Amino acid sequence: MHLIVERGALKRIEKEISEISPFSVAVVTERRVADLHLEKLMEHVKRAECIVLEQGEKIKSLETAIRLWKWLFEIGATRRTLLLAFGGGTVMDIAGFAASTYMRGMFLANIPTTLLAQADAAIGGKNGIDLMGKNMVGTFYNPKFVLVDTSFLDSLGEDEMRSGMAEVIKHAIIGDERLLEMLERNNFSIEEVVRRSLLVKLRIVSRDPREERGIRSVLNLGHTVGHAIELLSGYSVHHGFAISIGMAVSCRIGEMIHGFDKRERVENLLEKMGLPTRFKADPDDVIRIARRDKKAVNGRIVMAIPKRVGRVVVEEVDEEILRRALEEVIS
Amino acid sequence: MHLIVERGALKRIEKEISEISPFSVAVVTERRVADLHLEKLMEHVKRAECIVLEQGEKIKSLETAIRLWKWLFEIGATRRTLLLAFGGGTVMDIAGFAASTYMRGMFLANIPTTLLAQADAAIGGKNGIDLMGKNMVGTFYNPKFVLVDTSFLDSLGEDEMRSGMAEVIKHAIIGDERLLEMLERNNFSIEEVVRRSLLVKLRIVSRDPREERGIRSVLNLGHTVGHAIELLSGYSVHHGFAISIGMAVSCRIGEMIHGFDKRERVENLLEKMGLPTRFKADPDDVIRIARRDKKAVNGRIVMAIPKRVGRVVVEEVDEEILRRALEEVIS
Repeated sequence: MHLIVERGALKRIEKEISEISPFSVAVVTERRVADLHLEKLMEHVKRAECIVLEQGEKIKSLETAIRLWKWLFEIGATRRTLLLAFGGGTVMDIAGFAASTYMRGMFLANIPTTLLAQADAAIGGKNGIDLMGKNMVGTFYNPKFVLVDTSFLDSLGEDEMRSGMAEVIKHAIIGDERLLEMLERNNFSIEEVVRRSLLVKLRIVSRDPREERGIRSVLNLGHTVGHAIELLSGYSVHHGFAISIGMAVSCRIGEMIHGFDKRERVENLLEKMGLPTRFKADPDDVIRIARRDKKAVNGRIVMAIPKRVGRVVVEEVDEEILRRALEEVIS
Repeated sequence: MHLIVERGALKRIEKEISEISPFSVAVVTERRVADLHLEKLMEHVKRAECIVLEQGEKIKSLETAIRLWKWLFEIGATRRTLLLAFGGGTVMDIAGFAASTYMRGMFLANIPTTLLAQADAAIGGKNGIDLMGKNMVGTFYNPKFVLVDTSFLDSLGEDEMRSGMAEVIKHAIIGDERLLEMLERNNFSIEEVVRRSLLVKLRIVSRDPREERGIRSVLNLGHTVGHAIELLSGYSVHHGFAISIGMAVSCRIGEMIHGFDKRERVENLLEKMGLPTRFKADPDDVIRIARRDKKAVNGRIVMAIPKRVGRVVVEEVDEEILRRALEEVIS
């Protein structure tokens, strides 16, 4: 997989495409991204069929997958057609699923436009649709290239920037103390932040591409409690905001059981970035949901917990410890 | 992937399962196989949820995939649940697709019960559903083990045995002259035939698991014309029978352009096995369909053609050559 992270990276797309020499090119995007950026993309791609999906998580449906399969068939796409997923994380998810299953897998490339997608979702190969539950149907499937043009972030809303920053901070805790310091000192370019964030993730997923060895689970830092908060809020809380609160809880647990000594620094940084570290909910509700989390083993809660920056472990967490941490953060 | 080929192999299944140590076991099968063999399977598997699908190609639908996903969710299956696909090629196809996409991929094992599935379809990792066209949606996904118990063939109908034998003869032409001789001399055990057939296929798919390098296309011997015949007959001709006719055409082309000198022997063998080598159809219809075959390049016909036993090449075939061969075989 080629990874290009650069302001103005879009101008490199012709070269990337020509290296694959696809039979044809097709673009999947979403309404807002199409309005803002599709014309610019097409200047570089020239001939391509395009489909514009609506905005939001609801497009991650089986109905959209069917729509994409049929569209690909109608435009005469083959396995050697390159599908460009152009947009945020939801577009990567649904386009990746369709590409991985159309004729048993066609060429795919990701051009993420949100900070969350650029710094996290665009790599790792996970895709999925929401059926029964979130991402219950999907595959692991890697794009041929990921092209991150940070100039797309210029048009991003504040909440979306903040939401993406939560995953950046997560990656910093997992594997890049220097990145944490850069963010704290407010001394960074967004390209460097995105690149460093992706490199932490790449290092981890390359050792466990299909999430079979437990290594990848450290990327779930903040997600056990985060998912519970998303669910309890009826998905009205931004993903990154929920993860921020979840990280605050995990850091407290790390402090309690491993003497993690950066809990205050992490919380200060999250708050400085405009991210929440407090939430109003019933700890019992969160615990009940955490018991059914994907990482849970026979109802015993398993979470990613920081020991120190650069060392996150995935381990069973005693419910009383979790309750104490929750009581400090969410009640 | 573990491969066990043996009369009575079913008794080895407990050991195979215990080596995977799955969270739970689930079985997908089809009506006729359930009636004949499910009880015997369950003696060895003990605790497992079972779902019985109807018979035939129609189960390879999106509706069945949804049914399987929902069923897996309801029985609490996780990524570490082992799905046993128990039946013929259609069961392998639909179960493999569901397993590869449920939670981004759960454990899968194949227990083929027809000769076609035992000698061919159970390995290679291809799965798929029929949407828009045959196998237009699917993935490549390998089972943890394939357990071939040839005693299941005792209850197989004659046409199904013949149909499977067509793929065996195909594998013999592609890569095992000794197998061809064994079949000609009528001097073989079915275990050895199945094992040799699978080994030819394994050797090829291991060099090109995702059909990206053209190597795998030799396995399409007889399939370009075979698919056309299936389509023209409204799928009333058995797959293996259509492939048999297709091989007769390919062997004639091989004879014409490469001096393939076993054409008569292959035709005699097919006929001895009760397989057809003649069919009534309009060559123009076959050519029109062949132009749209998956292997076709910009409407130019590409076929697998034998040069000699053990040497099949994939190449563009002049339409006039194809027409001449078709006129000898199908008109």
